[in-house]
Amino acid sequence: MKATAKAHTNIALIKYWGKRDESLILPMNNSLSLTLDGFYTTTTVEFRDNLKADQFYLNDKPITGPEYTRVTKFMDLIRGYAEKPSIYAVIQSINHVPTAAGFASSASGFAALAAAATRALEMDLSNQALSRITRQGSGSACRSILGGFVEWEQGEKEDGSDSYAVQVAPPDHWDIRVAAVVLSSKMKKVSSRKGMKRTVETSPFYSSWVDSIPHDLKQIKEAIHVRDFETVGRIAEANCLRMHATTLGANPPFTYWHDTTMAVMQTVKDMRDKGIPAYFTIDAGPNVKVIYLPENEAEVEKTLRTIPGVTDVRLSRSGQGVTYL
Amino acid sequence: MKATAKAHTNIALIKYWGKRDESLILPMNNSLSLTLDGFYTTTTVEFRDNLKADQFYLNDKPITGPEYTRVTKFMDLIRGYAEKPSIYAVIQSINHVPTAAGFASSASGFAALAAAATRALEMDLSNQALSRITRQGSGSACRSILGGFVEWEQGEKEDGSDSYAVQVAPPDHWDIRVAAVVLSSKMKKVSSRKGMKRTVETSPFYSSWVDSIPHDLKQIKEAIHVRDFETVGRIAEANCLRMHATTLGANPPFTYWHDTTMAVMQTVKDMRDKGIPAYFTIDAGPNVKVIYLPENEAEVEKTLRTIPGVTDVRLSRSGQGVTYL
Repeated sequence: MKATAKAHTNIALIKYWGKRDESLILPMNNSLSLTLDGFYTTTTVEFRDNLKADQFYLNDKPITGPEYTRVTKFMDLIRGYAEKPSIYAVIQSINHVPTAAGFASSASGFAALAAAATRALEMDLSNQALSRITRQGSGSACRSILGGFVEWEQGEKEDGSDSYAVQVAPPDHWDIRVAAVVLSSKMKKVSSRKGMKRTVETSPFYSSWVDSIPHDLKQIKEAIHVRDFETVGRIAEANCLRMHATTLGANPPFTYWHDTTMAVMQTVKDMRDKGIPAYFTIDAGPNVKVIYLPENEAEVEKTLRTIPGVTDVRLSRSGQGVTYL
Repeated sequence: MKATAKAHTNIALIKYWGKRDESLILPMNNSLSLTLDGFYTTTTVEFRDNLKADQFYLNDKPITGPEYTRVTKFMDLIRGYAEKPSIYAVIQSINHVPTAAGFASSASGFAALAAAATRALEMDLSNQALSRITRQGSGSACRSILGGFVEWEQGEKEDGSDSYAVQVAPPDHWDIRVAAVVLSSKMKKVSSRKGMKRTVETSPFYSSWVDSIPHDLKQIKEAIHVRDFETVGRIAEANCLRMHATTLGANPPFTYWHDTTMAVMQTVKDMRDKGIPAYFTIDAGPNVKVIYLPENEAEVEKTLRTIPGVTDVRLSRSGQGVTYL
């Protein structure tokens, strides 16, 4: 009745942006990500007979409030699948995803939680089944079940049974790297949940975004298979810009970009003009991730660190899917 | 055979973005601007019998190359309308639109040139006819023929005869102000001509942009008539963001924004959060124009000047259309 799992975060190269079902967390479009070895969550779940509710500790601190509610509701879902509705657990998570780096810690968090909880209940799930459950905790977390390049297939069914992650290429297929650029500026932002909802409901650009995804996906998967870095980078960058364009058309309009976000994007373009292949991508926040090849690591890191407003640069490479400790 | 005209630049609140006919300069959508008193061009055109070509002086310097070619081709057009194909002129323009302020000097420049040249040829044109000719020198220049709030009607005819500017409200209808924020950063950019062409041809968002214009126009004209500043500002800002969103979807994608552009946008939003009604708009370049009410002028100017990367703030108010000196 006890298990420990480790899951990494992932960075989307083709973005998940918009839900077709809010409660099942079913997306409007397929997305594709790279699982990253540098940032992960380790979670131990122990079910105990004498508990009347779950207990949740994050980095050894007891958690209450909305974060606790989200976790215990997700545990209810797993208990439902296991047909053990009234057995509660002590959940201990250690998060190695620095908030400042601008990754959604919910991706590694819900992947590790789903893996540990289902293993503790001896559910013996396939990765496909596990990612389907994980998706209902946090959409992009379903991609963290697998390593390397991962596609989240949106599926078509109303019950979400065909909406899960599949591996496009394992971590050892291709050594491409990701630099997480940490910014000094902090501003309140529109959460990704609210941001995508407002965009889906009000942006005149949203349907064109959805329509553009199949072509992006086809091209980027071909490029991944033949290890064509320029094409992968170009498509990922264009996809990111298209996603962010949709927010500018929302009502009211909004953007996740700060002035330093813009400066990092410009610096990445300048690097390319100097012959260093590097491309950016940006999630629903101001931070920028830069993808590059191993041979350019020193130059890329040095260049990014010189940008005013950049406080740190964290390097990562292709990582594994969920593992059990 | 000699006339002098003065024309002001204008700032679009509903943007002109995309041509349906490149040579006649016919737009894909109506646009709406405010003519500004602070920035203008004064041009004297004198036709002389003994000349074999036009001579063009800008700020007392003789001009050759592409700038000269564009002017003399426009003069050919006017000569054609006047049925005087072989009479040439000395053209002397003094430009009071600082390049650094990020206004297209072609707007006031072609408006003043069209007015002076047609007057020198004693063509006695209506504003409508004059704006139709001016449009063929520089699209947005046709709006500078008139003062105050001006709409450029895109028209439907293939010959462009119904594509011209009309006044929505005269300058004394409403005293709203515009601050031109001058940035220190200089980068090569995609020209507005090339930018709109690439966007029309490749951006999946372009048709949604065009479709969104009639609603914007209807609302902003109603708001101008009742002097509802919040609505005018909100629509202008959203329209600007939607225009710039289209460039992010182009192939290859591009943006006119710099890091300081982003900082100015954020500062304007911060001002609103503090209760000062101010809104931004941005043309095909990095500079930002801020619209505000007279009673907030001191506070707006002071706030904008504190932004790092801002080197100057130039204030302007609603200006007149073409005048003859």
